[in-house]
Amino acid sequence: MAEEKLPNWLKNRAHLSPDRPAIEFEGHTYSFLELYTLSEKMAGRLSSIGLGAGDSCAVLLRNHIDGVVVIHALFHLGVKIVMLNNKLTAKELSWQIKDSKTAYLVSEGSFSGKLADIGEILPDLKLHLMEELPEEGTAGVLQEFYLEDTATIMYTSGTTGNPKGVIQTFGNHWWSAVGSVLNLGLHEEDSWYCAVPIFHISGLSILMKNVIYGMKVVLAERFDEREANRSIQENGVTIISVVTAMLNRMVQDMKGTSYPKTFRCFLLGGGPAPVHLLEVCKEKGIPVYQTYGMTETSSQIVTLAPEYSMAKIGSAGKPLFPSQLRIEKDGTMCEPGAVGEIVVSGPNVTKGYFNRMDATQQAITDGWLYTGDLGYLDEEGFLYVLDRRSDLIISGGENVYPAEIENVLSTHPDVFEAGVTGTEDEKWGQVPLAFVVLHQGAELGESELLEYCKEYLASYKLPRNVIFCKELPRNGASKLLRRELKKEMGEWR
Amino acid sequence: MAEEKLPNWLKNRAHLSPDRPAIEFEGHTYSFLELYTLSEKMAGRLSSIGLGAGDSCAVLLRNHIDGVVVIHALFHLGVKIVMLNNKLTAKELSWQIKDSKTAYLVSEGSFSGKLADIGEILPDLKLHLMEELPEEGTAGVLQEFYLEDTATIMYTSGTTGNPKGVIQTFGNHWWSAVGSVLNLGLHEEDSWYCAVPIFHISGLSILMKNVIYGMKVVLAERFDEREANRSIQENGVTIISVVTAMLNRMVQDMKGTSYPKTFRCFLLGGGPAPVHLLEVCKEKGIPVYQTYGMTETSSQIVTLAPEYSMAKIGSAGKPLFPSQLRIEKDGTMCEPGAVGEIVVSGPNVTKGYFNRMDATQQAITDGWLYTGDLGYLDEEGFLYVLDRRSDLIISGGENVYPAEIENVLSTHPDVFEAGVTGTEDEKWGQVPLAFVVLHQGAELGESELLEYCKEYLASYKLPRNVIFCKELPRNGASKLLRRELKKEMGEWR
Repeated sequence: MAEEKLPNWLKNRAHLSPDRPAIEFEGHTYSFLELYTLSEKMAGRLSSIGLGAGDSCAVLLRNHIDGVVVIHALFHLGVKIVMLNNKLTAKELSWQIKDSKTAYLVSEGSFSGKLADIGEILPDLKLHLMEELPEEGTAGVLQEFYLEDTATIMYTSGTTGNPKGVIQTFGNHWWSAVGSVLNLGLHEEDSWYCAVPIFHISGLSILMKNVIYGMKVVLAERFDEREANRSIQENGVTIISVVTAMLNRMVQDMKGTSYPKTFRCFLLGGGPAPVHLLEVCKEKGIPVYQTYGMTETSSQIVTLAPEYSMAKIGSAGKPLFPSQLRIEKDGTMCEPGAVGEIVVSGPNVTKGYFNRMDATQQAITDGWLYTGDLGYLDEEGFLYVLDRRSDLIISGGENVYPAEIENVLSTHPDVFEAGVTGTEDEKWGQVPLAFVVLHQGAELGESELLEYCKEYLASYKLPRNVIFCKELPRNGASKLLRRELKKEMGEWR
Repeated sequence: MAEEKLPNWLKNRAHLSPDRPAIEFEGHTYSFLELYTLSEKMAGRLSSIGLGAGDSCAVLLRNHIDGVVVIHALFHLGVKIVMLNNKLTAKELSWQIKDSKTAYLVSEGSFSGKLADIGEILPDLKLHLMEELPEEGTAGVLQEFYLEDTATIMYTSGTTGNPKGVIQTFGNHWWSAVGSVLNLGLHEEDSWYCAVPIFHISGLSILMKNVIYGMKVVLAERFDEREANRSIQENGVTIISVVTAMLNRMVQDMKGTSYPKTFRCFLLGGGPAPVHLLEVCKEKGIPVYQTYGMTETSSQIVTLAPEYSMAKIGSAGKPLFPSQLRIEKDGTMCEPGAVGEIVVSGPNVTKGYFNRMDATQQAITDGWLYTGDLGYLDEEGFLYVLDRRSDLIISGGENVYPAEIENVLSTHPDVFEAGVTGTEDEKWGQVPLAFVVLHQGAELGESELLEYCKEYLASYKLPRNVIFCKELPRNGASKLLRRELKKEMGEWR
């Protein structure tokens, strides 16, 4: 088969619909032609520091028009982008940069503190602030994107500890956008609100839809429920991507007001939604599409359409058109109602983890991704997700991986072993809770241990509490049973 | 690259949105689940006559729900479909069946006359009427379609005489549908009116969109302007595919009435539209999207959006998102405004002609299809098509190929040589006109020669007149100059 290729997305969009609004940011609207012109100029500046086709480059960016421009500029040059989570610590970021084997980091002055620390950890890294790039430079802009080529790498953990770089090809992003449009449809007046991070697949997938659909995106540097509501009520926003906490805050903020008829939907991801919130939305006539997806599926892969939102409350829905889904237990397909591992396939699914043959082979068989998540299908084929990853903690929409925190705790000289699980939290949904077994005779206090963690972990990953105990629950193969921790937590409360 | 595959379109659609309306035909609406159930049963009946994966089967069908069912049933079985034009003569059809190397023809009783003749010409053909298939039969339904696999073969001529079978893969159909949705958008309430033949790419592409989008299609056995207008005005149709003659008749029929706001557009194909008709539409507020496409591009590949319909009147627009376009003359790209051959590429473009290596290599280079059509781009990249194929005659929306008629004329024993061109006709747009040079001393009359043609040519291909002359205009390489015939025609008038 000839390798499938498509004309460079933003360049093509600027040719097909130059005058349409592309991005609205801080009150200014950039047309597709303007966005392309900025990105072409930025490509020239980036090429002058040595970046070119086949290179990879890490980026540490805010949700900002300049960040959007940098992303497209790197695509123009044929540079693979390692999307860094700007909430991580310098140590975490350095680990990912090193693992991704990229020689470049492009960022901005607002992260100067972290950047200085990264520079110390990785003295050979070519670290550039976008504000300080040479003003002039010309570069050839890729005419076409090959769908098989890597567009982005995003780090995600899992239960095995070290984060893994998920490879997302242009094809993965393309098919994700196409699968979504065949589900949500596309209206001329569509305008998508993006207050989720563009370094996450939730935000990046909106930027891909932006150029593929020729659809306006309203970009917010940070989420504010009043501003988001105002954008829907007064500024023509028709679709907004949210996690539960955002939806909750927006619904609270609405009070007596309502959304205009032109508003199409909340696209709700980042973990299961509490039923009572969905019921409130139904009552108020707020359309919510629940979704299920992950970095490895380049955004949503299963979505519940609003026509089913009450009859199938709590369900994540059915797969997008190009994708498939099954539930497996011990190597066989489960009957409806029976719980098993969620297994997915489709052209939006990653081909694997960067430089991790083993992890890739473990997760993907014949194009089917074993998500590690548990769930079941009802008689009509609707998916119910029981645990987003068996042990994953979702805190304020961020994935928090217990193993990562456990690894840090375990590095403290006084700690024998550690187990982490999530506990309910009104503000963040969940927060981590640590169970720690100290070495015999060691004396370590909770606050001292948490202080230690701060050096290695972003604040949202810090355990709310440390519970010291004599041993951790383990199964026959000595594998930590995190579910048992929850039971112990109940007793501890 | 792993071969891309997608879940069986109709089966998947019946799973994802079983209760949505799929096809409305003669007042009855079939849901996607009903359509799938019918097609699954039909697959069983077709398998009982020996059809199975890897076979090919010709079909001779009307625009009818049963025809739609047969098409999906053959897809379920993994059978390649040779789509026959039901307006052709038995001889023409037999030629195509033989050329396609298919052993099977599935048709219906309403074509019994033609079928009897075909049976005589091809005594070994396994010819079956769908009404007389065994009632029972079970068959495995394909779970997935590989995008590289051939879905359909459609015959088209060209200037070289014999028709060629255009290979259309599942991928070609898929990308055509996706390219269109990224241009037209997709609304929940969309309903597409199909009165163009389903054996043409114009109609078949609507059936593909039907299952890929999960969008309702209103199918008409034949075009009637009053019925089409009624469907838009009273029956919720939002999009209709037309050729100029259909649009003209519908606009005439509207008189003082208007279309509802929910009506989205006429998709106008099948050749350039007269400017005065477009102006009338603009005046009446009728949205018309002009398009350019062909069997080889699996439907439209260039489309003019209505926002440009007046500023760019007469233009076919810009390529669909996944496709590309350039104008070439003597191997180099033309500047804006300069006329050259229209060359297109994209994942909707055929990989070639069935069993015609030479024709394929002549038409396609590095994935770029040389259309044989002449045109130019303006400064902004909008395409203007000058001749739909340099010599093609479009009669009532049907392609009529001069070379094919010339071939028939030339087989008459009294004819030395023949040239055919089109002449304007109020009813059909164009009709063929023949210029014939007789052998020395031969005496043959116009009506006698036309009578002879009737045996070999569908009625819409019959020349309106035969003009006897002493010689035909030819260029230095003895190639017939059909453009010169038009000049002679002027003198003859």
